[in-house]
Amino acid sequence: MFGVTILGNNSALPAYDRHPTSQVVTLNDQVLMIDCGEGTQMQLSRYKIRRSRINHIFISHLHGDHYFGLPGLITSLGLLGRENPLNIYGPAQLEGIIMPLLNAAEAHLPYQLIFNAITTEGVLLDTEKFLVECFPVIHRIECWGFLIKEKRKPRKINKETIGRYNIPTSFYERLKDGEDYTDENGETVKNDKVTIANAAGKSYAYCADTLYNEEMTAKIQNVNLLYHEATYLKILEQKAAERFHSTSVQAGKIAQLAHAKRLIIGHFSSKYETLDDFLTETREAFPNTQLALEGVTYLV
Amino acid sequence: MFGVTILGNNSALPAYDRHPTSQVVTLNDQVLMIDCGEGTQMQLSRYKIRRSRINHIFISHLHGDHYFGLPGLITSLGLLGRENPLNIYGPAQLEGIIMPLLNAAEAHLPYQLIFNAITTEGVLLDTEKFLVECFPVIHRIECWGFLIKEKRKPRKINKETIGRYNIPTSFYERLKDGEDYTDENGETVKNDKVTIANAAGKSYAYCADTLYNEEMTAKIQNVNLLYHEATYLKILEQKAAERFHSTSVQAGKIAQLAHAKRLIIGHFSSKYETLDDFLTETREAFPNTQLALEGVTYLV
Repeated sequence: MFGVTILGNNSALPAYDRHPTSQVVTLNDQVLMIDCGEGTQMQLSRYKIRRSRINHIFISHLHGDHYFGLPGLITSLGLLGRENPLNIYGPAQLEGIIMPLLNAAEAHLPYQLIFNAITTEGVLLDTEKFLVECFPVIHRIECWGFLIKEKRKPRKINKETIGRYNIPTSFYERLKDGEDYTDENGETVKNDKVTIANAAGKSYAYCADTLYNEEMTAKIQNVNLLYHEATYLKILEQKAAERFHSTSVQAGKIAQLAHAKRLIIGHFSSKYETLDDFLTETREAFPNTQLALEGVTYLV
Repeated sequence: MFGVTILGNNSALPAYDRHPTSQVVTLNDQVLMIDCGEGTQMQLSRYKIRRSRINHIFISHLHGDHYFGLPGLITSLGLLGRENPLNIYGPAQLEGIIMPLLNAAEAHLPYQLIFNAITTEGVLLDTEKFLVECFPVIHRIECWGFLIKEKRKPRKINKETIGRYNIPTSFYERLKDGEDYTDENGETVKNDKVTIANAAGKSYAYCADTLYNEEMTAKIQNVNLLYHEATYLKILEQKAAERFHSTSVQAGKIAQLAHAKRLIIGHFSSKYETLDDFLTETREAFPNTQLALEGVTYLV
């Protein structure tokens, strides 16, 4: 399973039971959190997402609607007896902002809290099964987008053909990595005769609060799922630009230029009680669009 | 109207749709907030309490479940275009903790934010109609209780008797303050012949997170309404003491010793899904007890 569950889809001012930004990305047994607005820990309970499975939290920028839920989540994980380390990735200032809150409580966390300052574009996390990269977006303050890429899975042994060749099973792992097999007589079995390619790894890009920025699309080409903010409807394009935000149509254009397979939009302004117009407008530019709705999981 | 509306009645870990501590005290046209746990701004919306009417926020102590909602509320009030100054009262460290969060956002608040450090027992706020005092309670870290006292209202002119005396209307305000009237011939009209006493001012005490502490009751004698924490049921008295909290029965005993008219209890541990036992146990010690339920207003 590689999916994105939305916990908050609203912009700064909570409204209409829409919450500030947060989402979790599930990659098999890993749960990565992106942004953590106020109330995120309650949203996790509401949607029955196990807090203990979150080991990495990525904070795009230091506007409160993207991280004011972090101190409460960190504290609650301690009260729940967490023991595994928790990694936080975000702007360099973040650690110096969060630690005084924790210190004032004079509470000892039973787990290790590790702040990883984001200072430059590149790989933040590299595991056996996936990579998380960051890239800059254009907002009023320093702000980062995130790209999560499943690694290409190893090839599978072709059970129908493998029996035709005399290849020792001890070589199978190397076959899965794509190597040809050459026996002691120098005869070679081409890899693709005895293995089958697995599906390519999929990818998800999170384009946090950002001005419309075509340059960014070079970083996120061909993503399977793209989240892009759409704070305003197209009629407020001027206002969006002034506030370093994007409109519905601009989100659609970015998805088009990125050749994304699918787009979800969020970070809706609290001026909008209903969201139907966002969907209609964005689909003009990019038909395969959905609203990022709280509690819903979008498969990558 | 002098009443207390509960916004959050749970202890540190939000559970069962109970939220961390916050409440608002309405005194005619004033709304005072006491504590501001994570999600308080959403609770204000949920219960349709106008944020713009809050001019004073009192923070009892620096455990997160009592103030992690403050940065979000401060920010949202700015986004809503607030212009009136906002006063925050709390432990001296609070300003140094909150300001870096606001500064990191590089947002300019359109109103004045005033931090008032609580350093000693006494009067925090003295207005024409009410007083707010603080007193120390015993918790793991510095922690304050609050006492809100309506001032004794001025006397009323007795319309049935005032006509019998030749007292100029320009003296009426002094009559309301309790003065006797003496005319130019030296003849005196005793104040109580021409005025009627108004009801005595009422009082509300908030005993934030605290160990059972009988000494405290000297500060809150005869309060009309007492809020006392009751984190655990009586069987966990030992655990309560270790964590500097109180039990149901202890809250009742404090109300009894304080000669309170009425008690509300809150700050329930997340280990309890239902609260009926809290009520039963506390009433053993103090019959006129109610659970502090979210969204409910308790008249003082």
